[in-house]
Amino acid sequence: MSAWHKRKISGVLLDITGVLYDSGPGGGTAIPGSLEAVKKLKSSGLSLRFCSNETTVTRKTLIEKLNSVGFSLSEAELFTPVPAVCKILKERNLRPHLLVTNECLSDFSTVDQNNPNCVVIADAETNFSYHNLNKAFQLLKSLDNPVLFSLGKGKYYKSGNDLVLDVGAYMKALEYSCDLQAEVVGKPEKSFFNTALKDMGLSADECVMIGDDIVGDVGGAQNAGMRGVQVRTGKYRPEDENHSTVKADGVVDNLSQAVDLILAGQSS
Amino acid sequence: MSAWHKRKISGVLLDITGVLYDSGPGGGTAIPGSLEAVKKLKSSGLSLRFCSNETTVTRKTLIEKLNSVGFSLSEAELFTPVPAVCKILKERNLRPHLLVTNECLSDFSTVDQNNPNCVVIADAETNFSYHNLNKAFQLLKSLDNPVLFSLGKGKYYKSGNDLVLDVGAYMKALEYSCDLQAEVVGKPEKSFFNTALKDMGLSADECVMIGDDIVGDVGGAQNAGMRGVQVRTGKYRPEDENHSTVKADGVVDNLSQAVDLILAGQSS
Repeated sequence: MSAWHKRKISGVLLDITGVLYDSGPGGGTAIPGSLEAVKKLKSSGLSLRFCSNETTVTRKTLIEKLNSVGFSLSEAELFTPVPAVCKILKERNLRPHLLVTNECLSDFSTVDQNNPNCVVIADAETNFSYHNLNKAFQLLKSLDNPVLFSLGKGKYYKSGNDLVLDVGAYMKALEYSCDLQAEVVGKPEKSFFNTALKDMGLSADECVMIGDDIVGDVGGAQNAGMRGVQVRTGKYRPEDENHSTVKADGVVDNLSQAVDLILAGQSS
Repeated sequence: MSAWHKRKISGVLLDITGVLYDSGPGGGTAIPGSLEAVKKLKSSGLSLRFCSNETTVTRKTLIEKLNSVGFSLSEAELFTPVPAVCKILKERNLRPHLLVTNECLSDFSTVDQNNPNCVVIADAETNFSYHNLNKAFQLLKSLDNPVLFSLGKGKYYKSGNDLVLDVGAYMKALEYSCDLQAEVVGKPEKSFFNTALKDMGLSADECVMIGDDIVGDVGGAQNAGMRGVQVRTGKYRPEDENHSTVKADGVVDNLSQAVDLILAGQSS
């Protein structure tokens, strides 16, 4: 089979943190070459969507943050787990206890949170205190039919120069102590990728997902029928190239290289 | 087969929290009938040991706490995970980064903690902050051969009127994010029970373990060849009697009832 970038590509899905920019104290910085790469993609005529499990800030703040370092994203192009879980909560008449960052709370303002009958955890950062995790645990333990939503299940991500624990760690803690299995909303769930594909009006086999997470981005996209390409930026680690369960369709140094390969592959 | 208390019993192992007393703010309180039950056991001539995964306080404080509410325990009768893990660390030339309560630190004073090459977690209570868990995670992630010791793997326990997360939850979080399997020291590990059995000079089939944890106490004891009896005090919950993997040899209302059954069963 020909190289991943030589087969037909009509749409590109991009992860944000670790691909477009590195998060960290002070708002983060654009990854070299990514600004130009996004511009090239936008002017190429290919469909483009941004798929991120980012939940530490509101969608509005995330877009402001990205645009302040030179990107140009709109809400309509951005797929994150919060709108997806809000839809599920309303459909199933569930009222969440939220374990999220203080800022993220405002993205749930239209959701009834009285007398909670489920728990939603996101990347709550320092709100993942012993006290707050116990509150979520105690509520789940008190319910006849406990439901835990986890917005993503990442193992870790890069913040500044450090790797830090992602929501998946806390999901596993609650799953173990409550004897339940969380419902994951976000990457790597197929349904999450499908929402973006549907929005583009494209089929999975004509789309490529580019991300720094071998499981959440690459494995998730492949499971949804897309090609999954990993960048060697963000949380990428060399051992990802010998991952026990996921083999990327391609590995590139950064987004810039991926976009150049895509554009060259489609025009040749 | 005859009832658990009618077969020969030469030794009794008791869990502490939830069996002898309930922990909680202000030092905790003895469970009704337990003081008398321990006295009866001590004067019966049966061998008696206390097996606890308690790590929030030092061994000395634990004994003082128990004796202040009327028990009479000595260090020699008390089996907890800290001395066991200290022995392992020295044997394997491992220097721990400790994620434990501030008080528990002093039980590790003889262990070299410079330039750590492993992590030990215990029930660290409020020290299980996002910051501290990240420090343990980052160290493990930096090691070529990461080793994580978990002092017990309980899911939760009762503190005051609340169920609270036990060390097992945090063990699962680190296992997931570091892609490793912790080495558990303490209940329900067979080797931990065997140390107490060896100290009594008794074989497993003539001993009974009494605890409130269906997995850690009852399942662990049974796996070591003992009978495992659950009390309906402490963290006991009615669904434990239909547990998916562990069936207790006996279930009793409290320690007092267990001891009365044992003493009646042995004299008849």
